[in-house]
Amino acid sequence: MALIVHKYGGTSMGSTERIRNVAKRVAKWYRAGHQMVVVPSAMSGETNRLLALAKELAPSRQTDALCRELDMLASTGEQVSVGLLAIALQAEGLEAVSYAGWQVPIRTNNAYTKARITSIDDRKVRADLSAGRVVIITGFQGLDEQGNITTLGRGGSDTSAVAVAAAMKADECLIYTDVDGVYTTDPRVVPEARRLHTVSFEEMLEMASLGSKVLQIRSVEFAGKYRVPLRVLSSFTPWDIDIEQEARSGTLITYEEDEKMEQAIVSGIAFNRDEAKISVLGVPDKPGIAYNIVGAVADANIEVDMIIQNLSKDGRTDFSFTVNRNDYARAMDLLKTKVLPALGTETLVGDTKICKVSIVGIGMRSHVGVASKMFRALSEEGINIQMISTSEIKTSVVIDEKYMELAVRALHRAFDLDQPPS
Amino acid sequence: MALIVHKYGGTSMGSTERIRNVAKRVAKWYRAGHQMVVVPSAMSGETNRLLALAKELAPSRQTDALCRELDMLASTGEQVSVGLLAIALQAEGLEAVSYAGWQVPIRTNNAYTKARITSIDDRKVRADLSAGRVVIITGFQGLDEQGNITTLGRGGSDTSAVAVAAAMKADECLIYTDVDGVYTTDPRVVPEARRLHTVSFEEMLEMASLGSKVLQIRSVEFAGKYRVPLRVLSSFTPWDIDIEQEARSGTLITYEEDEKMEQAIVSGIAFNRDEAKISVLGVPDKPGIAYNIVGAVADANIEVDMIIQNLSKDGRTDFSFTVNRNDYARAMDLLKTKVLPALGTETLVGDTKICKVSIVGIGMRSHVGVASKMFRALSEEGINIQMISTSEIKTSVVIDEKYMELAVRALHRAFDLDQPPS
Repeated sequence: MALIVHKYGGTSMGSTERIRNVAKRVAKWYRAGHQMVVVPSAMSGETNRLLALAKELAPSRQTDALCRELDMLASTGEQVSVGLLAIALQAEGLEAVSYAGWQVPIRTNNAYTKARITSIDDRKVRADLSAGRVVIITGFQGLDEQGNITTLGRGGSDTSAVAVAAAMKADECLIYTDVDGVYTTDPRVVPEARRLHTVSFEEMLEMASLGSKVLQIRSVEFAGKYRVPLRVLSSFTPWDIDIEQEARSGTLITYEEDEKMEQAIVSGIAFNRDEAKISVLGVPDKPGIAYNIVGAVADANIEVDMIIQNLSKDGRTDFSFTVNRNDYARAMDLLKTKVLPALGTETLVGDTKICKVSIVGIGMRSHVGVASKMFRALSEEGINIQMISTSEIKTSVVIDEKYMELAVRALHRAFDLDQPPS
Repeated sequence: MALIVHKYGGTSMGSTERIRNVAKRVAKWYRAGHQMVVVPSAMSGETNRLLALAKELAPSRQTDALCRELDMLASTGEQVSVGLLAIALQAEGLEAVSYAGWQVPIRTNNAYTKARITSIDDRKVRADLSAGRVVIITGFQGLDEQGNITTLGRGGSDTSAVAVAAAMKADECLIYTDVDGVYTTDPRVVPEARRLHTVSFEEMLEMASLGSKVLQIRSVEFAGKYRVPLRVLSSFTPWDIDIEQEARSGTLITYEEDEKMEQAIVSGIAFNRDEAKISVLGVPDKPGIAYNIVGAVADANIEVDMIIQNLSKDGRTDFSFTVNRNDYARAMDLLKTKVLPALGTETLVGDTKICKVSIVGIGMRSHVGVASKMFRALSEEGINIQMISTSEIKTSVVIDEKYMELAVRALHRAFDLDQPPS
């Protein structure tokens, strides 16, 4: 008997017929002798529907009080899902009970619309499992210390599922989604993209942070921190396929480096166009500058991704960074009104028509020349590189948005990702 | 400065445009210097939509576990409403905060889908009001002792609003609804029906319990218990009508009998076709019979309305009562399998094609001949009476459902309700 966490996305929960299929699949696992915890997303389209209603009514200024109400509103989507899934499981003859995040409780900080989980109390859930019940927990949400509902941001249900699996010390966390695993890159851009049977946690983390939509990055961070055995697999297989076959399908996220040693240097190509670039030009080059700029932005709860500071000239330097496009206007406004006047500079440049393309691979650590191979491939296509950022297992470049697909295809080919590993 | 509770029905909350109008109306009251608590229902159609989804998935047997999930599901409708209304009020420039029932908390017993409020903690709400915030609280729901969400049953938001008004010792509770007050009877059945400017609490209680859909009965009970000044008024007036005029509109529920002394003997005609009749025939006439039958039904959380026991003959008697039509099948099943075998009788007769028509009026207490006038009016229309039940301020009859409108019109005319009181 194992303790298994299943997570189902919005598409899987998209209609009563699909919810019934989810219930049948969960029942199959339960009847195979496992203790089951299920974390479903909101029915597809529901969160958008709710936020569209809010948008029609909302004031123009995004205050903390407004974000609190957005969470109050958006969290209902998952509550509907857990109730319906519990009902469908009861119709399958199982005992099932649903909990909203606040009932578990799943504790978070109070950063409305992008809260982070701080702790999960597993006692209630464990008691239910011992009593033979299937437990269904809302994804995407939790409870702050003042008793307010918080949400974890888009895709937060992945994080909820992994966090629950970590708290319960689950034997495996299965993320059922509308792709059948992790690919070398997005097959819609590169038809030759291959599915990876395993991917190291670190590669997965980079790919998630770099724009692969398979898993929310925080869910991968959580999985790594607690070494949660995590599998991404398709929710489109028939619910009654052989359970052993299902248990081996998709892509397994691994924590043992040895398994990867003989594999390719570069595992995949990630990309996204969710970011915007901001440059502050002619900043006095003195200690505390980076903090003055990035700190102010981070304090406003805006996540900064790439940060680049150029060599200084005449005591002044240029400072560039990227933020999510949704935060772009707010970040520009903040810099213009609060930060720049204090810095004694007025030149602020922004660009939203950029994209980030990255190569990811554990193998990169011990192989030289990987980055230069990347730059050559891009140069051969005539693509200009605007920013570069590297880490031990990835190299990212910011380029003009219009070259994104071209760059991804060129890199996929340059690193032989269409060929199975030897 | 007064503390005012507004309650808005699902129609008033039916679209973002209407929610914006609600916000403007609440803002008008707030700006007139009042402390405002608002209890909105779910957007019209939402509760039905959610329960229809549940119905597609639900097992045939209605268990406690199922009812728990139905509450989990249905309670989201009001949570969406409070979030949206808070957002709309913020757009009006007011500080507004929303709470789900469990956050206040509004405590209830654990009778899922028909819970009763046991207590309301007013501290959080009072602190917000003192800080100048408008507080918006979900209707229809609360929290049981084990931390589960409960709902109060259809129309429960009226009860929530009155209970909140009682807990906060509000100066007035205004129920905005799609009728502009309490009428002598339903104007759709009798076009000559008149709006009552005031109605006594006891009459309102009878009219609510007898089928007038204006207010849920429990909300009237609550209002009476705590003497909450309660006004039913139209949500269809423009939001910017003069506040003094609005404050005097609709129907006020009064607690002072003196005001009514000179008014008509009969205030209104109530009717409903929500009930079904169940008769157990040939029951041994001995102590404890009523308890054996009604007790078993009540223990299953089925409300019993009229109860009639006929004179016994040969040591056996007939026992009849009415229940809500929704509970009819469950009550019949319970009697057949559990109660009748123990009683030594097997004759069970049920009828769902009945209706109840009642005349209501404080004046009835001190006037003889009111009931006989009612029976004569019905007899003149050739309508047969199946059951009769009387109290100090109402007389109800059960008749064939098909004569309902005819009976109501005849009684409205017989008691001169189309004439203004002299």
